[in-house]
Amino acid sequence: MTECWLDLAENEPFGLATLPYGVIAHGNGQPQPAVRIGDVAVPLRSATAALLPGCAELFAGACLDAFLAAGPAVWSEVRAAVTSWLGDERHRPVIEPLLIPLTDARTVLPFTVADYVDFYASENHASNVGRIFRPGSEPLTPNWKHLPIGYHGRAGTVVVSGTDITRPQGQRKVGEAIEFGPSLRLDIEAEVGFVVGVGSTLGSSVPIASFADHVFGVVLLNDWSARDLQAWEYVPLGPFLGKSFATSISGWITPLSALAHARVPAVERNPAPLPYLDDTGDSWNLALELTVSLNGEVLSRPPFATMYWTAAQMLAHLTVNGASLRTGDLYGSGTVSGPDPDQRGSLLELSWGGAEPFTLSDGSPRCFLDNGDEVVITAAAPGPGGGRVTIDEVRGRIAGAD
Amino acid sequence: MTECWLDLAENEPFGLATLPYGVIAHGNGQPQPAVRIGDVAVPLRSATAALLPGCAELFAGACLDAFLAAGPAVWSEVRAAVTSWLGDERHRPVIEPLLIPLTDARTVLPFTVADYVDFYASENHASNVGRIFRPGSEPLTPNWKHLPIGYHGRAGTVVVSGTDITRPQGQRKVGEAIEFGPSLRLDIEAEVGFVVGVGSTLGSSVPIASFADHVFGVVLLNDWSARDLQAWEYVPLGPFLGKSFATSISGWITPLSALAHARVPAVERNPAPLPYLDDTGDSWNLALELTVSLNGEVLSRPPFATMYWTAAQMLAHLTVNGASLRTGDLYGSGTVSGPDPDQRGSLLELSWGGAEPFTLSDGSPRCFLDNGDEVVITAAAPGPGGGRVTIDEVRGRIAGAD
Repeated sequence: MTECWLDLAENEPFGLATLPYGVIAHGNGQPQPAVRIGDVAVPLRSATAALLPGCAELFAGACLDAFLAAGPAVWSEVRAAVTSWLGDERHRPVIEPLLIPLTDARTVLPFTVADYVDFYASENHASNVGRIFRPGSEPLTPNWKHLPIGYHGRAGTVVVSGTDITRPQGQRKVGEAIEFGPSLRLDIEAEVGFVVGVGSTLGSSVPIASFADHVFGVVLLNDWSARDLQAWEYVPLGPFLGKSFATSISGWITPLSALAHARVPAVERNPAPLPYLDDTGDSWNLALELTVSLNGEVLSRPPFATMYWTAAQMLAHLTVNGASLRTGDLYGSGTVSGPDPDQRGSLLELSWGGAEPFTLSDGSPRCFLDNGDEVVITAAAPGPGGGRVTIDEVRGRIAGAD
Repeated sequence: MTECWLDLAENEPFGLATLPYGVIAHGNGQPQPAVRIGDVAVPLRSATAALLPGCAELFAGACLDAFLAAGPAVWSEVRAAVTSWLGDERHRPVIEPLLIPLTDARTVLPFTVADYVDFYASENHASNVGRIFRPGSEPLTPNWKHLPIGYHGRAGTVVVSGTDITRPQGQRKVGEAIEFGPSLRLDIEAEVGFVVGVGSTLGSSVPIASFADHVFGVVLLNDWSARDLQAWEYVPLGPFLGKSFATSISGWITPLSALAHARVPAVERNPAPLPYLDDTGDSWNLALELTVSLNGEVLSRPPFATMYWTAAQMLAHLTVNGASLRTGDLYGSGTVSGPDPDQRGSLLELSWGGAEPFTLSDGSPRCFLDNGDEVVITAAAPGPGGGRVTIDEVRGRIAGAD
């Protein structure tokens, strides 16, 4: 493997094998696209102007939209170039003076979110939720193993990691009374998000095999959820205000090409899916190991490889009715929950609907989020040469309602 | 009332009292913002350059986004200016040479749709759907009279009137079998859509009284619906592929200021809504009379004034959890259905779930849409001086699946 001329720690989470893309605000300048290596950012506008002028126009804006739209050949070209800049001493004199320490910068939302769709693709999560909300019934709805259930969320309230989350207010039913106030059951959903680069035509579908022609990369996603608002509103048209107040994503997008070593076979499915969801011969998932932390304490370790439906199946389903994709479409996997209690990706599950509080290390019992709580979701996956590829964390702190 | 110097018919549907805004493609030029009067368009880029240069920058783009974002004072200023250009002979020498016949132009999507939300605000519609889908149960869900139920739709597949609609394909359940193919129950939903001009801050709410500070105008909206796909997929997270393939809107947006004479008291509500939805003292709806036509034959005449929840209540609800608004947010009222059978705004209701076909004038029975069918939704409302204000139609024809 190529060595980086930067002085990186041996277990550096953002080494040459990762190289995620983001947009940083630094000083008084306009935000600018960058690649992360270690604790510094390579500003792409100036770096490409110097060393890859044919691509400089893609990074002229204050977001990654033009680069995302450029497609797989350009994504590969730029990744190869950045790898060479950082791995070849000959480029050091040009690149090193451009580097921006991350301590001097903050990440902003890296792309314009077009449509945001959230799936529900973990069998463990959907079964747990079914058992909690509909005890005594079949945990999964009859459609669950036939299609990746999903719904549209609010694109305009997707925020970058580090943004404070205002506790939402709304209606809830308590016994027979309808109450109004700040949510009393504020929760998280630990998810993996997929960022679409290349759009598609209205009226056409994107088959499973075309996944890599459209999807650029992954982020971690926290689908903040007000369970009391959600429970009262969601029949019959699905979640609305219980989710629409905020969704947080990583500031750095990890390109799919960094996750080539993270591919594992997808879980077996029974019944066999319909042909447009059949991934036989091209069945893969990503071995992303998530952690969910509350105020610095790890609550759970959800394994993404246990998801029933894969990202390629979700995309095939999303478009099978002819719905078009646009650059910047974002879709979430739904809460990632493994089979074990300590692999659950929501507090709803960890506290079993609030009925079985979990205990923090200081001995205090908890069910949902308090004001001031900070939640961090991280993930890592196998990388080349036995190393690890890190997905940038998603972090958020709960502020009280206005 | 001011007279227009153009030779307009006495009952001209797009007279001086209406003046809707759209974007037209004409010749080989970039699409440009325009106002409609009669059968011609006033191109706003050149007209403001000549007569209102302070606002010319707002119309420099190929959409209305900048104008929408400019807010109520600018909306009033431009409307007053356009009214004077067309009502005052002194401006005729400047304006008349700029006019573009609509036969030489086509309308394109007039703004960038940010988030699209669809409500469910007609009591008659929701009750009919409840009776059709859940016979023997209470037609309305317990939450229905406490909050305007809504969900997010797909912003990227909102299309302008006149766009052909590709019949979607997808999964449906027939008896115990899961089938796949083009929808067999393709339907319409006749709705009124509201276009947000001025955004709001994440974490804050938009009270009922602030409606006019944010909402610019109305369009007609056809929320095309594949009932067979929808029925199989929608539990528990709501409609997804059954709706996401296309939503059509009028090419011309009627500003709310053109509808001042269309205001009527809202229907009485029982139980009284929570304070944030209480519009006592500022309770108004719009007396828009819709028509739904299939291949030139009027099927129904839904009265918008019968809606249980108003546009201002929908906006207050949408934001009460702190969700922010953006320029270009679009929200639909949900299907408009009056109490009478010939006032129903969907084929689902007109054919009672397909069980009671309605009869076309040629004697043929129909339930849902055939390939080649063309649906047109129109609306008019009381205008000044006993006249009528027309809302631009929304039109769409069904093409077969690929």
